[in-house]
Amino acid sequence: MRMSELSATSGVSVATIKFYLREGLVPAGERTSPNQALYNNAHLDRLRLVRALIDLGGLGVTAVRRVLAAVDDTAMPVEQTFGIAQHALPNPLPDLPGAPPGHGSEILDALVVAEGWLVEDANPGRAMVEKVLDTYESLGHPELASTISAYARAAAIVANADLDAVALQGDRAGMAQVVVVGTVLGDTLAAGLRRMAQEHITRTRFAPPQEGTIP
Amino acid sequence: MRMSELSATSGVSVATIKFYLREGLVPAGERTSPNQALYNNAHLDRLRLVRALIDLGGLGVTAVRRVLAAVDDTAMPVEQTFGIAQHALPNPLPDLPGAPPGHGSEILDALVVAEGWLVEDANPGRAMVEKVLDTYESLGHPELASTISAYARAAAIVANADLDAVALQGDRAGMAQVVVVGTVLGDTLAAGLRRMAQEHITRTRFAPPQEGTIP
Repeated sequence: MRMSELSATSGVSVATIKFYLREGLVPAGERTSPNQALYNNAHLDRLRLVRALIDLGGLGVTAVRRVLAAVDDTAMPVEQTFGIAQHALPNPLPDLPGAPPGHGSEILDALVVAEGWLVEDANPGRAMVEKVLDTYESLGHPELASTISAYARAAAIVANADLDAVALQGDRAGMAQVVVVGTVLGDTLAAGLRRMAQEHITRTRFAPPQEGTIP
Repeated sequence: MRMSELSATSGVSVATIKFYLREGLVPAGERTSPNQALYNNAHLDRLRLVRALIDLGGLGVTAVRRVLAAVDDTAMPVEQTFGIAQHALPNPLPDLPGAPPGHGSEILDALVVAEGWLVEDANPGRAMVEKVLDTYESLGHPELASTISAYARAAAIVANADLDAVALQGDRAGMAQVVVVGTVLGDTLAAGLRRMAQEHITRTRFAPPQEGTIP
């Protein structure tokens, strides 16, 4: 297809596609004349992946390039792409001004030992968890840290499902893509289902039975 | 304490505190002269909660006001504050341009029936889950929707832990605060632990045993 069709099909403007081409996020098309090139479904797929990383994952151009290089590097073991995707995602928690350092790091270390988790210090999840635990403490609710073992159990279920989905892919390219897509979108899937489960469990645990509603 | 001390202890600038006072996010201090007022630990706690909602939760001033009104409304059943906190949080997923509508809604409806979940259509989690499922599909990986039952199981564990933490509070004020704080920060706690669990499970499932590492 031509650039104009690629744009119409993907919903991405020609100017943006040209920018991605210049930045190397989308591979060049097959040149048919000095001013024209043809694109195929692989270009369309890549373009959609780039948009998902930028618009949904919040990644910058440099981070996208790093993630795509991992996806395309057939010599890289697929499991390494998890770490690259994790590091590329922006840390969703900024520093809270004036919050004193708390005991988040110690609580997390104890969890890691209790669960027998093999996790490097550089894992980006560590900083996120420590920040949340420190914030619970600074907000006067250190007891909320006690939820961490249930959250860890849930995280193991989710991560196993993530890995199952990767293992089901037929080839390395598919596996690497699923790692990236699942890492970027899985947090939102989990957060959405958490809101639904909160409503359901609140209704069943707190609310009195009402006439006309499902018991 | 005076305004200057409240600022020093909280790490929030005097100008910002004055803005919050004007907007009604922090209650007025006890006036001791036309130009001076005294603040106590309740003001400090409220100020920290406001910062957490804005800086960590990404809430705007109007959303913060709505959440605080729910926290302070002693006539409101605590379980209702969940919905208010959920609705106040910004939807983390913008629209992906050009993505065709997929089968996310049908897949989610089937899950809700299978799990027997009592969840209203207006629950903000629904739109998040549908968006993720539609995006999986538009990125050429509809099979990733199969992870949803494991994610739902994990969400139920997390939501039960959230509700347990609420039930442990001694009074309504504490319960409402824990609902808000846990709703805002729990997603990040879950996302951080997911990254750690992904690394651990990847190592134990994919990686060959190496000399010198814990087996």
